[in-house]
Amino acid sequence: MSLLNYQDVLAAHQLIKPYVHYTPVLTSTILNELTGSDIHFKCENLQKVGAFKARGACNAVFSLSDAEAQKGVVAHSSGNHGAAVAYAARERGIPAVIVMPDDSLKCKFDAVASYGAEIIKCKPGTKNREAAQDIIVAERGMVPIHPYNNLKVMAGQGTCSLELFEQVKDIDILIMPVGGGGLLAGNTIVAKERNVKVFGIEPDLANAAFQSRKANEHIKLDKSSTVADGLRSSIGDMNYLITKDLVDDFFCVEEADIVPAQKWFMSRLKQVIEPSCAVPIAWLLTKPEVIRNKKIGVIITGGNTDL
Amino acid sequence: MSLLNYQDVLAAHQLIKPYVHYTPVLTSTILNELTGSDIHFKCENLQKVGAFKARGACNAVFSLSDAEAQKGVVAHSSGNHGAAVAYAARERGIPAVIVMPDDSLKCKFDAVASYGAEIIKCKPGTKNREAAQDIIVAERGMVPIHPYNNLKVMAGQGTCSLELFEQVKDIDILIMPVGGGGLLAGNTIVAKERNVKVFGIEPDLANAAFQSRKANEHIKLDKSSTVADGLRSSIGDMNYLITKDLVDDFFCVEEADIVPAQKWFMSRLKQVIEPSCAVPIAWLLTKPEVIRNKKIGVIITGGNTDL
Repeated sequence: MSLLNYQDVLAAHQLIKPYVHYTPVLTSTILNELTGSDIHFKCENLQKVGAFKARGACNAVFSLSDAEAQKGVVAHSSGNHGAAVAYAARERGIPAVIVMPDDSLKCKFDAVASYGAEIIKCKPGTKNREAAQDIIVAERGMVPIHPYNNLKVMAGQGTCSLELFEQVKDIDILIMPVGGGGLLAGNTIVAKERNVKVFGIEPDLANAAFQSRKANEHIKLDKSSTVADGLRSSIGDMNYLITKDLVDDFFCVEEADIVPAQKWFMSRLKQVIEPSCAVPIAWLLTKPEVIRNKKIGVIITGGNTDL
Repeated sequence: MSLLNYQDVLAAHQLIKPYVHYTPVLTSTILNELTGSDIHFKCENLQKVGAFKARGACNAVFSLSDAEAQKGVVAHSSGNHGAAVAYAARERGIPAVIVMPDDSLKCKFDAVASYGAEIIKCKPGTKNREAAQDIIVAERGMVPIHPYNNLKVMAGQGTCSLELFEQVKDIDILIMPVGGGGLLAGNTIVAKERNVKVFGIEPDLANAAFQSRKANEHIKLDKSSTVADGLRSSIGDMNYLITKDLVDDFFCVEEADIVPAQKWFMSRLKQVIEPSCAVPIAWLLTKPEVIRNKKIGVIITGGNTDL
């Protein structure tokens, strides 16, 4: 019995449907010519709150019983998860507190505030964030929603590829960036149900999943400074357990390749993307030999970036 | 008998179908809330060559007889029309020369070159560009493709709204930016066939169509320096004649509102757009009272901008 099953993702899809977009899939003639493959981008930059995180947060928030939900939810996040929990709470009509490090991007503060959540600022660093959240949980009885080490969140994120496989048939390989592994866990479960290979891509500077695979044990790294700010976390405990025997391979990209890949994608596909989703793009642009003559699905994770 | 008819646009749609994208339509919850209207964006930034100009260029190039096409085509353009003619010529398998002022954006040079056209640089200014083109026509017998004062180009551009009205029913008002008026002419013909109102939006610094309407005669302005570089031309001769009795109204936006509108749109809709298509966005954001409770179609004209 696995921690996370295909049925959990199917159930998430039904539950969150009214609150998330069925996002479009884009292709690029020039990228297909460059790589010799057939690449399909699932555009979660066009998702509610501008990132796939809306899926997981909605599944977690709407899965709460009325009694649990009543006092509201709390999350700590420098980025999209905070906005996603704020959005999901607003849709359910319950209060939300988002703990945010005081060095978060202005656009992320604005996004959380626009959904009506209460923002509590803290010093940067996981410990400070967790301590601030613990106080909220203790004092107000709010339910904490972890950004990735949470089965409902993972199931919600898995709905990305559930839709993608409906939209594009016969995909050979599903590719996505890996941070805490919420996206990876949910979508690996779906891909394996369809016999689709899964590649996880990480920045060299934040490659805990890659290193864990090599060492065959769960390795956690110090918080990274990669420009791909959504991928600075190491893969989570449950995320590691769920994915370790299922992901086909992990690859890393050089830090210097990330921002050029972001700009390349924006200027070619006219989609605003954040640096985290440029990580798989950088890999596609620099290592096309692995995917030649394959049909590829890539999850474009989000578009929230200070322009 | 009008210069341009609905049937011309229908014929263009059939002719160019294999060479252009049927582009998607996007909406924005936040913009609908802000304006109190129901706005649908026809995303020609996702068109071939990143702009609606692919439609008109393809119609003009594929409408040539084999004898005409044989020696190739020539266009002068600092922007998207050059790339569009280069693209259309490549698709037809004929040579193209694009005359470009030497101060054109690097991304525009790159685009034209990527389609295999020969680039001839000239000093900026319409006279210099036309003189350089005249030499090519005289020496090589190539067919000049005017960016807007050309009926085949106008008919091609009109296919934008032909698709939009298929995708979204019961639009009340069609809104688009106005430069030379190729887009305006083609799409006004289609809108009037469906009893849809048409509003043309111009920058204050390049508002020849607005001034022409006020004066009830064709007014041409000196080349403008508006940041909306695709709208610097005055409305063309045939374009004025075709649209003068059909367009419902013209509006202008302040120069200072254009770039903020571009950034607002990019950060909210995650679409890379060029300053020219931020002109209608600026108008929507600053003058929503005119469109309240209406169903609006807006043509997002292109996404080619140096990021």
